[in-house]
Amino acid sequence: MKTLENGYLICEKGISKGIFPEIPEKYSSFPVVDYGNAIIIPGLCDLHIHAPQYAFRGLGMDLELLDWLNKYTFPEESKYVEIDYANVAYDIFTEALKRGATTRASVFATLHTPATVLLMEKLEHSGLATFVGKVSMDRNCPDILRSKGAEAAYLAAKAWIISTKDRFKNTSPILTPRFIPACSDELMGRLKELQTEYGLPVQSHLSENKSEIAWVKELCPEAGSYADAYDSFGLFGGEGVPTVMAHCVWSEGSEESLIRQNGVYVAHCPQSNMNLSSGVAPIRRFLNSGIRVGLGSDVAGGCQTSIFRAMCDAIQVSKLYWRLVDQKDAPLSVQEAFYLGTAGGGSFFGKVGSFDEGYEFDAVVIDDSGIPSSNPLSLEERLARIIYLSDDSCICDKYVRGRKIDIGGGVYK
Amino acid sequence: MKTLENGYLICEKGISKGIFPEIPEKYSSFPVVDYGNAIIIPGLCDLHIHAPQYAFRGLGMDLELLDWLNKYTFPEESKYVEIDYANVAYDIFTEALKRGATTRASVFATLHTPATVLLMEKLEHSGLATFVGKVSMDRNCPDILRSKGAEAAYLAAKAWIISTKDRFKNTSPILTPRFIPACSDELMGRLKELQTEYGLPVQSHLSENKSEIAWVKELCPEAGSYADAYDSFGLFGGEGVPTVMAHCVWSEGSEESLIRQNGVYVAHCPQSNMNLSSGVAPIRRFLNSGIRVGLGSDVAGGCQTSIFRAMCDAIQVSKLYWRLVDQKDAPLSVQEAFYLGTAGGGSFFGKVGSFDEGYEFDAVVIDDSGIPSSNPLSLEERLARIIYLSDDSCICDKYVRGRKIDIGGGVYK
Repeated sequence: MKTLENGYLICEKGISKGIFPEIPEKYSSFPVVDYGNAIIIPGLCDLHIHAPQYAFRGLGMDLELLDWLNKYTFPEESKYVEIDYANVAYDIFTEALKRGATTRASVFATLHTPATVLLMEKLEHSGLATFVGKVSMDRNCPDILRSKGAEAAYLAAKAWIISTKDRFKNTSPILTPRFIPACSDELMGRLKELQTEYGLPVQSHLSENKSEIAWVKELCPEAGSYADAYDSFGLFGGEGVPTVMAHCVWSEGSEESLIRQNGVYVAHCPQSNMNLSSGVAPIRRFLNSGIRVGLGSDVAGGCQTSIFRAMCDAIQVSKLYWRLVDQKDAPLSVQEAFYLGTAGGGSFFGKVGSFDEGYEFDAVVIDDSGIPSSNPLSLEERLARIIYLSDDSCICDKYVRGRKIDIGGGVYK
Repeated sequence: MKTLENGYLICEKGISKGIFPEIPEKYSSFPVVDYGNAIIIPGLCDLHIHAPQYAFRGLGMDLELLDWLNKYTFPEESKYVEIDYANVAYDIFTEALKRGATTRASVFATLHTPATVLLMEKLEHSGLATFVGKVSMDRNCPDILRSKGAEAAYLAAKAWIISTKDRFKNTSPILTPRFIPACSDELMGRLKELQTEYGLPVQSHLSENKSEIAWVKELCPEAGSYADAYDSFGLFGGEGVPTVMAHCVWSEGSEESLIRQNGVYVAHCPQSNMNLSSGVAPIRRFLNSGIRVGLGSDVAGGCQTSIFRAMCDAIQVSKLYWRLVDQKDAPLSVQEAFYLGTAGGGSFFGKVGSFDEGYEFDAVVIDDSGIPSSNPLSLEERLARIIYLSDDSCICDKYVRGRKIDIGGGVYK
């Protein structure tokens, strides 16, 4: 991680030209915004968040994954069949995401096309840059969340893709089979057709919970692993199939190798993995072996949209993993967690997550003067305090692809 | 946990008379404060917090306990020999504690008597009700934090106790040997004399970290356990020796029995135990066997003063404990965590932590309207969201022993 005090960050046509101690001659005619003593960091990237679940964040944290899905998640997601409900709930969600330090997100919506399109419109209007997925499901869930057969699911997904793929500037569709238990083999096959036809990225869930993994083994007895079940349909990374899989708490052996070989992104969601009693993903081991890792808030498995919080959670659970599971795997440092939440996950979105020359200009301006200190602080110390102690009210400005977005005035409550 | 919607909470002379659906006739002449749709809860109790460490919260989280003490904690605590520095730093600390939901705290200061008395004055002025400990140390720490011999430490502690024990209304001295490694046998013996003479409660640290425990074993080869080392000096609970021990992450067997038999309070500090890679205390097992448990923020091992955050952390680490360590020990529920942060720890301070008749009237009034919801919420759900999602800006009023205290206006930034 590089830091520069009193430096100049240059943006030209939405692209970073780098950070300089003085303004280079060739940019001397550019307008300058002086943020005084504030800290400017690359925008944070959320690799996994469920927009409809924001409505029940902080509730129903007494169950494991599968029971939690049935008792809380599916009933809430069913409400998005009503566009009026979706309108209210997605306004709240979008506002929250806009006000925080996140500039990029890979978002799950629900099965419902009108509500998903509405969410995409709201996110586009917010100025954030996102992938949004209409969720595909055709089994093992309530009727209201289930397409009536794979063909119907395919047609609905196809119509949604066609209607949204070129419609927005900052908002794109992402293929979203919910997870293997909710998608029949036939549906997975048809989704692969769509993936190929439209060149879409893919997001889903992988090896979050032991009961879930056992269930996938039952459902796909021929698959070598949960990951292999996706891979057998061509929906697990590799050339032309950019893929992010949330959790990977229990991925190991051949599954871990497949994640690495296929360049699949792991969306590490530490708080969700605590809240749903899932466990701790072996992130140090993943990083050591060259697996791509970013962070996810996983609202509402996680309660907060904050990727700063996800950084803290990632560090904290890595310490418990080291202490309780495997002392070969050293805890994550603050710098590493910051990397995961910026460039680590950012590359799923393109050249994102850094101020190096050529990266898309996503920036968050943070005023930490509201976190008082009795000691002088270095830039690195200020950043650590921002990660551990700041909240949305510290954010003064936010830029996505060079465009300043409206975050609502800086102090929100 | 009992809740009542649109109820009346009655306070008379600083004591709760209970909660009623209608105002009982005998209180009909009492003035009424209408808090509308806000939620009123008992004040939160922090059983373990280091005031001088607030200055470096969120920093230096890359080490385990003993190295962290030497590299960060002791250098910071040394600064409190300068009363001007203490004045600035303790203002920031007191302000933070005042603004949050904490009404009671058991606080570590430093070795320095003038700075400790200054802290007590500030806390008294804040209206919070606290125990504050001048820390006793005479070995294994920098010279500037070490009394020159047990006799000097004894005399300094005695003078401090005499000068503060009857000086304040809401602030009392608590005997505070830092931990066994920092206190010689002679000092422990002399502190017991003071404990007996002045009937003081006791606070210290116990079995936080494996290296620390091994060190105590070296220092006290005759002790049956770390706890036994305290007990052998009569500074570990029992009749007339109210005692709170922070952490107890690795307490088991005879030590666990001694904690229970002597009625020692465990200050469970889950975030600190993550940050310093200490582990997870077996709180379910402690509760099942009748051990008294409350929550501690353990600033700066923990980064936040918030006991709501400590509740969430306690639930989350209990889930990882269940998943990774022992599936016999069920995770804590939200209700249980709320109990730990109120009545559980509160009883260390007297009849504190409940609105039942006869309890001291500590109350926090919380306006959760700034946490938007697309669904109607029950009272229990609103409380869960307050625990998981609220921050200090949601607090509108706070009462300690029936007295409304100035929290700075409700919105702080």
